[in-house]
Amino acid sequence: MKAEIITIGDEILIGQIVDTNSAWMGEQLNLYGIEVYQITSVHDSREHILTAVDNARKNADLVLITGGLGPTKDDITKHTLCEYFNTRLVLNEEVLAWVQEMLTRRGVQVNQLNRDQALVPESCTVIPNGTGTAPGMWFEKDDTIFVSMPGVPFEMMHMMENEILPRLQRTGKAKSIYHKTVLTQGLPESMLAEKIEEWENNLPSFIKLAYLPSALMVKLRLSAYGTDAGFLKAEVEKQSDILKTIIPEYIFGYNDETLAGVIGKKLTELGCTLSTAESCTGGNIAHFITSNPGSSAYFKGSVVAYSNEIKKQMLDVDPESLEKYGAVSEQVAREMAVGAKKRMGTDYAVSTTGIAGPDGGTDEKPVGTVWVAVAGKNQVITKKFNFWHNRERNILRSTQSALNLLRSLIINENPVKS
Amino acid sequence: MKAEIITIGDEILIGQIVDTNSAWMGEQLNLYGIEVYQITSVHDSREHILTAVDNARKNADLVLITGGLGPTKDDITKHTLCEYFNTRLVLNEEVLAWVQEMLTRRGVQVNQLNRDQALVPESCTVIPNGTGTAPGMWFEKDDTIFVSMPGVPFEMMHMMENEILPRLQRTGKAKSIYHKTVLTQGLPESMLAEKIEEWENNLPSFIKLAYLPSALMVKLRLSAYGTDAGFLKAEVEKQSDILKTIIPEYIFGYNDETLAGVIGKKLTELGCTLSTAESCTGGNIAHFITSNPGSSAYFKGSVVAYSNEIKKQMLDVDPESLEKYGAVSEQVAREMAVGAKKRMGTDYAVSTTGIAGPDGGTDEKPVGTVWVAVAGKNQVITKKFNFWHNRERNILRSTQSALNLLRSLIINENPVKS
Repeated sequence: MKAEIITIGDEILIGQIVDTNSAWMGEQLNLYGIEVYQITSVHDSREHILTAVDNARKNADLVLITGGLGPTKDDITKHTLCEYFNTRLVLNEEVLAWVQEMLTRRGVQVNQLNRDQALVPESCTVIPNGTGTAPGMWFEKDDTIFVSMPGVPFEMMHMMENEILPRLQRTGKAKSIYHKTVLTQGLPESMLAEKIEEWENNLPSFIKLAYLPSALMVKLRLSAYGTDAGFLKAEVEKQSDILKTIIPEYIFGYNDETLAGVIGKKLTELGCTLSTAESCTGGNIAHFITSNPGSSAYFKGSVVAYSNEIKKQMLDVDPESLEKYGAVSEQVAREMAVGAKKRMGTDYAVSTTGIAGPDGGTDEKPVGTVWVAVAGKNQVITKKFNFWHNRERNILRSTQSALNLLRSLIINENPVKS
Repeated sequence: MKAEIITIGDEILIGQIVDTNSAWMGEQLNLYGIEVYQITSVHDSREHILTAVDNARKNADLVLITGGLGPTKDDITKHTLCEYFNTRLVLNEEVLAWVQEMLTRRGVQVNQLNRDQALVPESCTVIPNGTGTAPGMWFEKDDTIFVSMPGVPFEMMHMMENEILPRLQRTGKAKSIYHKTVLTQGLPESMLAEKIEEWENNLPSFIKLAYLPSALMVKLRLSAYGTDAGFLKAEVEKQSDILKTIIPEYIFGYNDETLAGVIGKKLTELGCTLSTAESCTGGNIAHFITSNPGSSAYFKGSVVAYSNEIKKQMLDVDPESLEKYGAVSEQVAREMAVGAKKRMGTDYAVSTTGIAGPDGGTDEKPVGTVWVAVAGKNQVITKKFNFWHNRERNILRSTQSALNLLRSLIINENPVKS
């Protein structure tokens, strides 16, 4: 099955937003064995949309269209598709009820623009939008499937995952593919590649390995292509097990897991609690932890101590330590973690203090210098990191590195009984 | 002048990399008054490249092509363009000398694949690559300009800035475009559209308006197209000024500004300080604030009070209030803000308490119920929000709504003297 993606919206063409939708859709379709032939970004213009859709039809069995479904005047996708498929707009009572329910829940008065969102092309299958008001539309014509979705990334993703991909799978046109992503932390890509070189060279030819590095981790994606789904799964799992014996300490999870999520699961299992004391990460560790549903079971709170007064007053950091070693020091990181653990009465506490930049660096402590400490049941461990990025990335790297140090101490203090 | 961008490379279509090149080029071209008509991403395939280039020629005066210029076998752009322009590859001595110099500098032995990079189509103008080995190529045919550049972002950017954009400017074909983006918070897209309907209908025909909604804000982008740059700018600014009189309380900034950034600037001007007390936002408000360079000048810290004990112990929330009204209540939000302001000794403090979901909702307080409070110099204001999203988006919406309430109190307490 061959697909083409069409993204509609002036904001993409003038570079106001980066089209991340297409990459996400390309990846998802690939996981379902559907090859993306072309990605086309076009203006909110009737003629342009008509040409793009018709060109796509010539090459693809599946045309995925995003954008231009909002309630305002510049959103013309629905009318244009009506014209292309030679159909007319009709009121869909279910969509109307849903729009009214969603807006009422939000305390928004329903106006005519909202009601118009329930007008859908007569010949299409309406696809529910679980997280927004604009419905998706599924058309079929001459053996080609056309799907129109909202351009808002989370609405599109929700619709793809819950509606479009399952429907595509039911068409039976998808190939067998089995993917598993191994998530690693603590080694840069090149060192990781060296460590697993022999294993990589010995992979069977039907399993492909991809390195996917980001600020958060290095992902290793194993993809097996073939016809026997059961066999592919067994082989990938076997290779993943072998990999686990080669780099056990760097693998923290698989597939969609996150480092904060893995830590949360472990703390829940152990019945342990956590607090954080953050300077340079500015609340981002707490944010990562509390992004997980159910985190209130183990996370008690955080003190974001941006100023030295707060470090002293709310985390009991010794004024002499600040004076003698400076705020960005092993000693202060240690006292922050110990202070948070004690003040908030938790089993574990993690702290950060560093220079995120762009200002505040010195020769001795350049921008990117970060101290992390973790106070556990019986000990406090510390680690220094030297990042070299911009502010945003330094905060992100510090957050993940702190979480990874926390993970290592939790595992260390609570070995799995065999 | 109308442009089309063609990006070549399988890695874009399988979603392994996000195509950030196109957005950057679109933005740059716009600044030079060149409108991007379409962005097309295609495979490393001869037929596909030929079709894409020829389709682009029909609509555009300028076709910018990136990717497929590397030294390896899958890079076929150069050969394909030779075929399209009916020319042949010839050795360019200057490029050869440059390739040899670059690789020698890097300590790389020059091989045949590298030497082949100095083969260029006979009919093109060779564009120097200041940061890599693959030269750019500039073709002209039937009044259309075609430029082929490397896909490596920093090589492409360097070539665009130093070679392509200046050359395009010298052609004298560029139209004038002026953009301004008005950033709003506090009104959903449909209600905003209603409020500004009359203004929108009265916009001159050469000014286009686009609504760009996201979880963070609704952006209104004004774009004026014409020939007289000064006139366009004046007209857009005039319309933006009129808009400001219609929805003054909802506009928080312009263009690339952020809500947290605007607040930071205001606090810096006023010499005022800020702290936060976060329950459902879990540290994300502090994270947004500290993402701004220089935030340590006005941000003292935050207490992320996820558990009730921390609310009592570190923010002086009255146990009776928690008992009587529950943690998610106006009273507790108010006490959290007052407690943070007092404990951390700041001029302003903002607090949140709510149910981010997916669990924890009740009939009376469903998931998405959020109370925000802001303590200022002379008063405490509170506001209740009803979101309806998933956890991630509820946290994001709560964060921005809290920042917006904070902004409104700061403005209220510190009116601009005229």
